[in-house]
Order: sequence, then structure tokens, then C-alpha cells
Amino acid sequence: GLTDEQKEFQKVAFDFAANEMAPHMNIHGYDLSGIIYSPSLLSKLTCFIYLFSMCAWMIDTFGNNEQREKFCPDLCAMEKFASYCLTEPGSGSDAASLVTSAQKNGDHYILNGSKAFISGGGDTDVYVVMCRTGGKGPKGISCLVVERGTPGLCFGKKERKVGWNSQPTRAVIFEDCAVPVSNRLGEEGQGFNIAMKGLNGGRINIASCSLGAAHASLLLSREHLSVRKQFGETLSNNQYLQFKLAEMATRLVASRLMVREAAKALQEGRSDAVSLCSMAKLFATDECFSICNQALQMFGGYGYLKDYPVQQFVRDIRVHQILEGTNEVMRMIISRNLLSES
Amino acid sequence: GLTDEQKEFQKVAFDFAANEMAPHMNIHGYDLSGIIYSPSLLSKLTCFIYLFSMCAWMIDTFGNNEQREKFCPDLCAMEKFASYCLTEPGSGSDAASLVTSAQKNGDHYILNGSKAFISGGGDTDVYVVMCRTGGKGPKGISCLVVERGTPGLCFGKKERKVGWNSQPTRAVIFEDCAVPVSNRLGEEGQGFNIAMKGLNGGRINIASCSLGAAHASLLLSREHLSVRKQFGETLSNNQYLQFKLAEMATRLVASRLMVREAAKALQEGRSDAVSLCSMAKLFATDECFSICNQALQMFGGYGYLKDYPVQQFVRDIRVHQILEGTNEVMRMIISRNLLSES
Amino acid sequence: GLTDEQKEFQKVAFDFAANEMAPHMNIHGYDLSGIIYSPSLLSKLTCFIYLFSMCAWMIDTFGNNEQREKFCPDLCAMEKFASYCLTEPGSGSDAASLVTSAQKNGDHYILNGSKAFISGGGDTDVYVVMCRTGGKGPKGISCLVVERGTPGLCFGKKERKVGWNSQPTRAVIFEDCAVPVSNRLGEEGQGFNIAMKGLNGGRINIASCSLGAAHASLLLSREHLSVRKQFGETLSNNQYLQFKLAEMATRLVASRLMVREAAKALQEGRSDAVSLCSMAKLFATDECFSICNQALQMFGGYGYLKDYPVQQFVRDIRVHQILEGTNEVMRMIISRNLLSES
Amino acid sequence: GLTDEQKEFQKVAFDFAANEMAPHMNIHGYDLSGIIYSPSLLSKLTCFIYLFSMCAWMIDTFGNNEQREKFCPDLCAMEKFASYCLTEPGSGSDAASLVTSAQKNGDHYILNGSKAFISGGGDTDVYVVMCRTGGKGPKGISCLVVERGTPGLCFGKKERKVGWNSQPTRAVIFEDCAVPVSNRLGEEGQGFNIAMKGLNGGRINIASCSLGAAHASLLLSREHLSVRKQFGETLSNNQYLQFKLAEMATRLVASRLMVREAAKALQEGRSDAVSLCSMAKLFATDECFSICNQALQMFGGYGYLKDYPVQQFVRDIRVHQILEGTNEVMRMIISRNLLSES
Repeated sequence: GLTDEQKEFQKVAFDFAANEMAPHMNIHGYDLSGIIYSPSLLSKLTCFIYLFSMCAWMIDTFGNNEQREKFCPDLCAMEKFASYCLTEPGSGSDAASLVTSAQKNGDHYILNGSKAFISGGGDTDVYVVMCRTGGKGPKGISCLVVERGTPGLCFGKKERKVGWNSQPTRAVIFEDCAVPVSNRLGEEGQGFNIAMKGLNGGRINIASCSLGAAHASLLLSREHLSVRKQFGETLSNNQYLQFKLAEMATRLVASRLMVREAAKALQEGRSDAVSLCSMAKLFATDECFSICNQALQMFGGYGYLKDYPVQQFVRDIRVHQILEGTNEVMRMIISRNLLSES
Repeated sequence: GLTDEQKEFQKVAFDFAANEMAPHMNIHGYDLSGIIYSPSLLSKLTCFIYLFSMCAWMIDTFGNNEQREKFCPDLCAMEKFASYCLTEPGSGSDAASLVTSAQKNGDHYILNGSKAFISGGGDTDVYVVMCRTGGKGPKGISCLVVERGTPGLCFGKKERKVGWNSQPTRAVIFEDCAVPVSNRLGEEGQGFNIAMKGLNGGRINIASCSLGAAHASLLLSREHLSVRKQFGETLSNNQYLQFKLAEMATRLVASRLMVREAAKALQEGRSDAVSLCSMAKLFATDECFSICNQALQMFGGYGYLKDYPVQQFVRDIRVHQILEGTNEVMRMIISRNLLSES
Repeated sequence: GLTDEQKEFQKVAFDFAANEMAPHMNIHGYDLSGIIYSPSLLSKLTCFIYLFSMCAWMIDTFGNNEQREKFCPDLCAMEKFASYCLTEPGSGSDAASLVTSAQKNGDHYILNGSKAFISGGGDTDVYVVMCRTGGKGPKGISCLVVERGTPGLCFGKKERKVGWNSQPTRAVIFEDCAVPVSNRLGEEGQGFNIAMKGLNGGRINIASCSLGAAHASLLLSREHLSVRKQFGETLSNNQYLQFKLAEMATRLVASRLMVREAAKALQEGRSDAVSLCSMAKLFATDECFSICNQALQMFGGYGYLKDYPVQQFVRDIRVHQILEGTNEVMRMIISRNLLSES
Repeated sequence: GLTDEQKEFQKVAFDFAANEMAPHMNIHGYDLSGIIYSPSLLSKLTCFIYLFSMCAWMIDTFGNNEQREKFCPDLCAMEKFASYCLTEPGSGSDAASLVTSAQKNGDHYILNGSKAFISGGGDTDVYVVMCRTGGKGPKGISCLVVERGTPGLCFGKKERKVGWNSQPTRAVIFEDCAVPVSNRLGEEGQGFNIAMKGLNGGRINIASCSLGAAHASLLLSREHLSVRKQFGETLSNNQYLQFKLAEMATRLVASRLMVREAAKALQEGRSDAVSLCSMAKLFATDECFSICNQALQMFGGYGYLKDYPVQQFVRDIRVHQILEGTNEVMRMIISRNLLSES
């Protein structure tokens, strides 16, 4: 049931995984339950950015046997796709204050509220939703799986974004939407905990996407410098640009090492995993944006034209400093851990 | 003969000029020949960026009486618009190496070649074109005025750009295009000199556009911080964001002072004018991009949506670090002047 | 009564003032009561950093006629010098929380407490001291002038500092130190207000010192690049260093404009003077430190040797980001003003 | 034959090595020939920076059996110390242009010339000297071991430096200094190759020293924030400083990962080892200087006093951006490798 584009993506993704991810496979248990990719083939130039789905991992990790059997096979075979619904218009990075309510009524929860910035919203088959079943704060939050076609599950308009246009983003709205209690992952009140664990992996994924964009931008700009002539010689003879290229490569290597170290810590269940995931997300998304943006500058006027791919990397990657907790939230998490250690 | 949009722009532009430009009117002689604005109404939110035309100034300064009488009244009344044609696909910032040729044949020049990234190209009425009438290097360059409708004056497709979408950009192509010798500004071989003088003003204009975008972004983000709540209080109570706002405002003030000092030096004909124009362009376009980009970050996910204007400022302003000589060329000019002084 | 060094300084300072300060003389009234310089001749290479004394200005502005007659002539003739005593070991940038107490006893105040980081402490003749005559907070603070030789006026050891070694710094300690009530500047409770007004000028002065150090460093590094050879040619042929030099010069010009704008605003009593003084201090001390530090880098190993002056500028200028309110406090002041405007 | 201070250092160094270096022991063969530390106990506060000697490694790697037996045991037992003599007053980072000459005369070389910035110069027992035995360029360079007491081996004055004052630096001067041909490491003309291989390890060592200083500074500033009060609460409640601390920690982790990756590549003889050593040196010395400098800022006025250790880390670490090839040379090496790959 895959389109040609999805099949092409699947091949590219597995080749990529085989080469790039091999040293770190078995990262936080993904390979046990299979790996699911969002169909985000970003460019016809065969450069792409991959996104692991947190949803399959969440169901596999926190679900019971029936839930696993019901959802995981299709997700892992990439015959169905899932969206993760945490952020709300009024909560942003402050997940513990979410207000989407789930009132228990017999063997169903009645969901009301709305979720913002949902990747894949409206196009995907399964929605893993954080909602409030109890009182204020993190302990009142639970996690429900909502299936497409459930009455009361509605979607906002397709958002017009600066980048990531290969992947639709919509608000997801619940209007008296009845969800079976059997679709709850874990116990009531466990939702915030599930959300936070999912975010660790999500931050590594976002950071990895930044690595891909920065790596591609670096290669493109290196090639451009070798070809483009100014003042009678190729730009690669321009020492200032040479040195900028050296800085870009150095910062890309540092970003990659940060992502790998965080993935390793998460997989090994180390106590510094939360800090390292936040550091990797903060560092890699900031530095890789700078790399892409510097690459655009090296292309001069061409870098600003949509015929050249470098501008797309800049536009796409910009949101990584915001997604899965803004980089300001990353600083908050890191500093809290640092100060509580002392 | 103005459209409603052009009339609206004219009003806004003159109000803006009255308030903002008043202390520095009479800058490099614009007010003698009138001021011409490009019709670049960038946003329906009443925020806009203005662009002075170099072309009217060039004709007024370097043209003879007949040329002034023929072109300036319409340009100054904004009944006609002009495009400035310097950059070529193969020359970029290295203007002295341009290859568009103008062969004299009786009382006409026969133009052949193409110009890239021409703002307004295809939509405007008059093209001020730098072309080669003599040998290699800057001394072989002359400046011709080409009128719309001249046979052999062609245009490329409308470029798809990251920003500045209110203003079309096209290649301008000359195919055996015959231009009367009487349309030459100044003497043969004077073109490079005219181009360089025009660029000083052009750099101030670009830097001024950056000030406008950064100022608007600062106001938008300040308002957002005062309204948006996270973790139970408005973002304006977040000290980190407060301090970021302080840095943005500080750098905006410094950018504005740089632009004003450069404009003053240019108007007074000071010997440091070329350096100061380059410094103003380098400093203001770099710092103001950072301000806009930081403002986007303050908006979180909303900053990435096209419904919010801050992302447009980021996309538009990005090209200012490239236009009218890239910021790398600015560094080259400044350092040459510095080292030749010693 | 001046030493030869003091006389030499006086000449250099007035020459400097004549050339550099001329456009902005009459800044916040200094020239009415005379200008007093600290004898901080920093270098035998005729490069120096000047420091205006806030104390003479404070006595002239807030004192009565007798106080002015008693103290100003000697201070302005540079026959006596004054130290400004605000900071305490436990208060730092939080001046309003100072605890040095002044208990009124007949026609004297009995001073007890200690002041930290006092420039000139122990060597100067007059101490302008902020102390607590009333309750907590800013309204309980008054300003007293304490003369050398007053019993109970003691000094700590000479501090060993990273730089600014031309000027001694000591703690100033008051042990039952009796000061005549007639030495109080202004009314009881007016001290905090006097202190804050003094700081505006103090911040411009510190920022000006940074300009001097950065300017000297820029000239030194430009000369070094023109003389020093590497890889068969002078460093000035190294494009990366050329461009760095261009950035240094650009940021120095921006710093200078910020300082001048702040001085102008202060002199004209504009409502944005407090923000602009804080911005000038924040911007100029940060940027000028970077300039000096980059200059040191350009000298390579020589830059690290005390035989070369560039390292002294780096060491001296580093404290400017801390003095007269740290740059973090500057951000706080600027952001408060920004947010209260909206 | 060790002083008490040297013995104390040895213990600290081995403890440090056991904990910190354990995962990467056997790095580029040091452990085969033993490890030699310079006696650079930098602080009475038990914080220190270590420096591996390249010299023992060079003799062990490039020397013959007799040379190894003659020099290595004493060096490895830390009963003798060695200095590495590459840089010259006129060559700096451009090692291939060195001019110290070694003319063969029977079974001796007659050395003439001078070396600059030699760590330990005048205090150490053995000098590993790069000198010119042949024509211009890298192929004319050989490597000689000169023993203390050789006639014609002289030393300049002890340099007064910004930091690293625990370790003397002097010029080393050769005046008709006769060195046995049997003290030549490797063949004639092999010196440049030996020098470059030594530098890879040297760059990792310098970068490691930066990690130590930055780590200590981070701990000191974290403790200071937790203790120091301003505006009624400890500085650790100040969000801006919290976030700065988070950035410092993030950049320290990235620096450490870069150093470890480079050490691993060097040990494994990977083809990217030269690039990674240069990247590690560039990245870690730049970032760690910023960390130490930011830590100083967090201490406010105290940070500037020599009674507090943080200023010493700033002064010491500053030279790491210059030693073993300036960071500009690192950019050159990295960019050359990048561009030659494409």
C-alpha cells in the first residue's frame, strides 16, 4: 500500500540507517519493535531528512500486549503512520499545563480540546494524545491513542510554514471525541512521564535531522567554492571562505559527536541521559543552523533562489531550534540538572 | 497613473520619510532630484521596507541636461520605475570583470550579454546598464540607459526566492539590442566609477531596510513576550528573554548609528565615506538579521508560521547580507582601506 | 605639587581631550567645575586610558556652596584626588542593599562598615561614601564626604589584580569613623539617587576607556600585520586576518558611536539617557574586549609576552565588563526600560 | 631526585590519568615508552593542568636503540625533563621556513640560530631541536637532540608572560654548538616529518589542558552561584546565569568529545587523524577559553582578583589558542584537507 515515493524513501532510509546508524543501532529499543519513519522525503536531489516516530516506540514501550498487537505491525511496516499530540496553543514548551480534557464515561473517555503544530495531523492514521484525566500539573495527565475516523476528531487548516513543507502540519481538535478506555497507554496519571521519555528520543531525532541538513549544506558549499569563479579564480582560493568551511566542518563534527554520545547514554540508561539529550539538541540544532546559513551565504545570490537546495535546508532546519522543547527549555533542563548536582 | 497599491505606498513612504528620515534629509543629494521608491509594500500588516532607487540619482548626477529632462520627471513622480543592471551570472561581486558588450555602430551601441538578479526586471520602464565598451578591467566599462520596448531587450523567468517576494527578480538579457549613443551616461570608460558611487548609496539603503525589519521584529517580539504565557506567567517575566531583548535593542541602536554616520559621511563627501558605507552595510545587515532571527525564536512555533509576520522579516532580510556586494566584499573594502592608510 | 609623571599625564590628557573630546565637550557639566583625571598613565608607549572622576562632579552637582569651595578647587587642579565608595563585599551590583551604617550623633555621623574594590583606596585624599542613615532599601541611603586622616578610616591590603595595576585598589573600612554632618552631600535619603546619577557618567567613562584600549590594540595589530612575515609574506597579505581587522575596525566605530550617542543624551537630559548609557557600557566594553583579545591573537606568541603592550590592554579592559554595574546589570536596566515602555 | 612539589605532582597526575585517561590509554603509543609529565603544578588549590611531553615520544618513536636507551629511562622516570625546540623568532607557525643551521663537520653538527618561546628552556636537561641540514623548505630539516651543558647552548631571559607562570619560557640560542651526529633522530631531511607527527599529539595535549581549565572554572562558578547573594537571593536563582552555565557545560562536553575522538583517531592511525587533531585543538581551545572567561564574569569583581583562581585559568588558557600552531593554522590545515578531498 505504499506509493512509489514512500517506497523510494523506505529504501533510502534503510540504506542510510545501515551506513550511518549501524554503530548505534538498538538505540532506546527502537529495533525491538521496528523502526517507523515519517514520509518526509525533503528534496528531489536525493538529500533528505529522516524522522523517527516516537509513537511506535511509545506504544511498544508503555502499551500492553493487545495494544502492541493492534497498532505496532502496521506502523512498523509503514502501512500506517502516527502523529504525536502534546503541544497546545496555550502551553507550548510547558507540557505540564495542558488543558485538553478526557472525562471518563463508562468504558470511554470523552476528549475535548485542541493540539497545535501536529506533524502529519490530518494525514496520519493514529494519534497519540496527551490529555488531562485528573487535577492540575503533571500528575493529572494520561496518554490515549485516537484512531482516524473517530467521531469528533477534527483538523485545522494546513499551516503555511517557512519550511518542512513536505510534511503537513495542522491543529488537531477534539470535540466530544469518545475514545475507548482500552486505548489508554499505561495507567491514568502516567502520561507526563511517557511524554518526557518520548521527548528524549525525539530530541535526538531532531538533532539528527539537523546533522543531515548541515552535512548536505557543507558538501554543497564545498562544491560551489570549487566551481564558482570571482576575481579571476575559484572561490576555494579565497582564504576567508576556506577558513569558514573549516569552522563549519569542525562544528558539524562536534554536533555529530554530541548526538552520538546522547544516543549512547539513552540506550545505556545512564543517569546523564536527560542532560545529554538536551545538550545534543541545543548544540546540534544551533550549530547546524549556523552551518546551513553560512553555506547559503557562500552561494551568494544563488543561495537565495529556490532553484538551489541550500535555502531549503536553512528554512527546514530553523524549526529544529523550536521543536520538541525550544532551545531555551533545553538550557533550563541542563541548568537544573547541573545545579541540583552541586 | 498609479495603482491603488502604489498610491498607498507613496503615502506611507512619505509619512515614514517625514518622521524617520527628517533629521537626515538631503542625504547625498537625493532631495535635489526627488526621491524615488520602489513599490515594495512588503506586508498587509502595514510594515514595509523601503528602497531608494539608485537609478534616478545616477541619471541626475552623471547625465546631461537632455537625459535629465527625458528620464527624471517620470521617475521622480513615480510614474515610471527603473532597474539597476550591474551583476552578471559570472561576475557577482566582481563588477570589474563584467562581459556584457556594447559595440559602437554609428550612433548606436549594440548590446549583447545578460544581467542576473535584477530587481524589478521585466516590470520596470528603464534599465541603467553597466557594459563593456572597451578593454578588460574597470576602465573598459560604460553606463547606458535602455528603455523598455527596445528590440532585443528580453527577460528571464521570474525567480522564486526565499523572500522579497513583493518585488520580482529576473535576468535581463540583451540580444543585439541597439541603444542610442545619446543614452550613455557620462563618458566611455566612466561606467565603473558611476557604478561604485551608486553602490555607496545602495549600501546605505540596504542597511536602512535592515533597520526597518529589525525594528519591527523587536516591537513584535516585545509585544509577544508581554502577552504569551508559559509556566504560569508571561514570557516577559523570563529573565533570559528579557536580557535577549536588551541585546537586540542595543544592537539595533548601534546599527542605526552606523547607518546614520555613513549617510552623514557620504553627504559631506568625507574621505572615510566608502569605508563607513561598507561598515554600515556589514554591521547593520549582520546584526539586524540576528535580531529578526532571535525574534522568530521568541515566538516559538508561531514564529515559523506564515500567519505571523516575523518570519517574513527573517526571509526578506537574509538577502541584505548578499546584495550590493556581499558582506565578504564589505570586509575586503574595509580592510584594504585600513591597510593602505598605515 | 604634581610629580613629573602627573604633569606629563595632565598634558597628554588635555591634548587628548582637545582632539578627541572636542565635539562633545560640556558633557554633563564637567567643564563647568573643571575636569579631574585619575593619574592612570598606563603605558610607556604613550598609549593611555583616562578616567573621569565622578567625585568632583558629584560634589559640584549635589553639594552646597561651602562644600564646593572646600573640595572642588584642589580636585580640579589635580592637587588632590578622590575615590568613590559604593560597592560592598556583600552587595556588588545591588547597591540598594548596602549596609555600611552612619549613625547620627550630634553634629557627626559615626560610620561603620566596609567598601570593596575601591579604586585609589588608600592613596587618595577624599572619599565619597554611600552609607545607610535610614531604613532598608534605596531611600535609607545618604552620601558623605570623608577626608583622609579621619580617625577610623582604614584600608585593606592592596589587591592583586589581573590588570589596571597602575591604579591601586583596596578595601576601605570605617571603624567608628566620625564624619561631620556638614560633609553630607544633599539631604538624608538622597544618596541612592546621587549614586545612580553618578553611575550614568561612570558608565560612559568606562566605555570610553574601552574605546581607547581597543583603538590602540587595533593600531598595534595593524602595524604587526604589516611587518611580521609568515609563509614568505607579511601577515597583511593573509585574507582571513585582513577580514578580521575589518571586523575589529567596524566594531570599534560602532562602539564609539554608541558612547557618543549616550554622552549626548546624558548632556541633553534626554529621557533615553539611562538606557543609552547602559547600552553604551554593555556594547562598548564587550566589543572592545573582543577587539583587544583578537589583536592579541594576531600577535601570536608575542601577544602573550609582557614585553608587548597588547596583552596589557586585554588584562586592563577585562574589568570594564564588570565595573560600574556588571554587563548583566546593564541588560537588566535596558530590558526593564524596554518592557515598561510597551 | 624529585622535589616535594614534583612528587606531589606525579601522584596527582597518575591519579588523574587513572580516572580520566583510562578509557583512552595506549594513546599513540605513549604507554609503551612511558609517560612524561612536565612539572606544571599550576595552582595551590589543587587544580592543575598537565602537559605530556612530545620529546620522549619522539625519541622512542624515531630514535634508534642506543638513543632510546640513553634518553628514555631518565625521561620516563621523570628524573630528567626535555624541551621541544621548533619555533623560531622569524618563523612562528611556518615551521618549514626555519633557519637554525646545522653544518656537518666530521662526526658533529655545528648548530647556529635561535628558538623562541621554548617551554622549560634553561631548566630542562634535553633539547629536541629542529634545524636545517639541507636546502630550503621542509626536506632540508633534521632533528637533533642537544644535551644540557653542551658548549654554545645558551638561553635568553625568562619571558614575562600573561599566564603559565609555573613553567619558565626562554629563547634557546645555539652559538657554534657542536652536537654529535649520533644524536640525530632519524635520517637527514626527516625532521619536518617528525615535527609534524609530534604536533598531532601536542595539539591533543594542549586541547586536553583546556578541558581541565574549563572544567575547573565551571565547577568554581557553579559553586559561586550557589553561595553568592545579590538582590536578596543567591545568583543561582538568576535565570540568565543558569542558562549561561548550561551553555558552558554543553560546550565543555562537546570539547571533551572532540578531544577524545581525535585521540582515538590518532591511536588507530585513521586517515582523518590530522584533521581531527586540528579540529579538536581549534574547537576546544576556543570554546574552553570562552568558558573560563564567562566563569570570570560570573565572579564579578572577585573574578578579577588574584586571590581567586578563576582568573588564572583565563590567563593560562589564553595561550592555548596560539601554541602548537595558532588556531588560524588549524583552520588552514582543516580546510586544505577538506578541499583536497572533494
